[in-house]
Amino acid sequence: MNTSAADKNDKHKTKMQKQKQRIDSQIEKNSLEKGVMIFLTGDGKGKTSSAFGMVLRALGYNHKVGVVQFIKGQQLSGEELYLKNKLPDVQFYQMGTGFTWDTQDRSSDIEAAEKTWSVAQRMLKDNTLDLVILDEITYMLSFKYLDPDTIINSIKGRPFGQSVVVTGRGGGSRLKEIADTVSEVKEIKHAYNNGIKARKGVDY
Amino acid sequence: MNTSAADKNDKHKTKMQKQKQRIDSQIEKNSLEKGVMIFLTGDGKGKTSSAFGMVLRALGYNHKVGVVQFIKGQQLSGEELYLKNKLPDVQFYQMGTGFTWDTQDRSSDIEAAEKTWSVAQRMLKDNTLDLVILDEITYMLSFKYLDPDTIINSIKGRPFGQSVVVTGRGGGSRLKEIADTVSEVKEIKHAYNNGIKARKGVDY
Repeated sequence: MNTSAADKNDKHKTKMQKQKQRIDSQIEKNSLEKGVMIFLTGDGKGKTSSAFGMVLRALGYNHKVGVVQFIKGQQLSGEELYLKNKLPDVQFYQMGTGFTWDTQDRSSDIEAAEKTWSVAQRMLKDNTLDLVILDEITYMLSFKYLDPDTIINSIKGRPFGQSVVVTGRGGGSRLKEIADTVSEVKEIKHAYNNGIKARKGVDY
Repeated sequence: MNTSAADKNDKHKTKMQKQKQRIDSQIEKNSLEKGVMIFLTGDGKGKTSSAFGMVLRALGYNHKVGVVQFIKGQQLSGEELYLKNKLPDVQFYQMGTGFTWDTQDRSSDIEAAEKTWSVAQRMLKDNTLDLVILDEITYMLSFKYLDPDTIINSIKGRPFGQSVVVTGRGGGSRLKEIADTVSEVKEIKHAYNNGIKARKGVDY
């Protein structure tokens, strides 16, 4: 090794030692062990898939998981197939109506939303569940299909150790307030706007 | 139903019919069926979990998947456990060195990065794989552990039907250019900064 490379390695080591100190001291400070509420919002791709990644992560520890999807296309999705065929232990409920622009029927949408919410509400009271996913529930708020107070209170009143992941692009200002972690997924670009067909196993 | 509610429902129906027309016409225009490259960047929580959500989605269709993780903590992760124990058919390789601030050793990091990249490169040539995940590879670029041209060319030269998901916060300006879809995951807030311990099955 020449001197310049050795020098680079030394500098790297010092810098990394400092970074490790910073990270370790933050880890040490963080002592509160509780279920977290995560809110994934924004217009970009990756919110629902991120929620399902956490399902997989939780299942790695044999945690118990419940998933409620508040909206779905008429197309079958990969996550739906996987949950139904491979993960019978995951509690899974889907509002079976298609997108609201498919149904075009407000009162049947509201009825379906309320039925779906009652499943979610039961999960949010179930202290055997480690993780609950409320996928696309924000649409139910922006369309005023469900009462925000009821949802906020149910999430806040969930069992102490239970984590909740909420996804959806609009209608989430109050969800932001009560969340421990909020990520906004911004669309920088999307294949969809470039003539590329939605891709099975990636987009749905 | 009173007049006002009926009126609301009618308005809703008209609005949704228009929205459906817009969406359907975009779907019709999109005819190019090819594997996509998705780049998930930004400082917020949800990039790796989103990639793993797409793994689950792809497996729903019995697609073949390869996953390479370029960085890992010394802690075991839920996704690692799940892949190893439940998904032996997924090709999975992990750079087994810990974070670069844990190793503090630049030359051994580079060696590990190169070895890991050779696995990724093989996957990017394998036309039996429908989906390849390159998790946290951007760190290898920002630390200058790997050559960006080689990575860009391998991704661009992959089999036509193969999709690639690349994650990581920094070092991705050239990846952005070649990606079909780019989402920037912005941290709005994070439990971590509020004294809450990283949560098993959610954060790792």
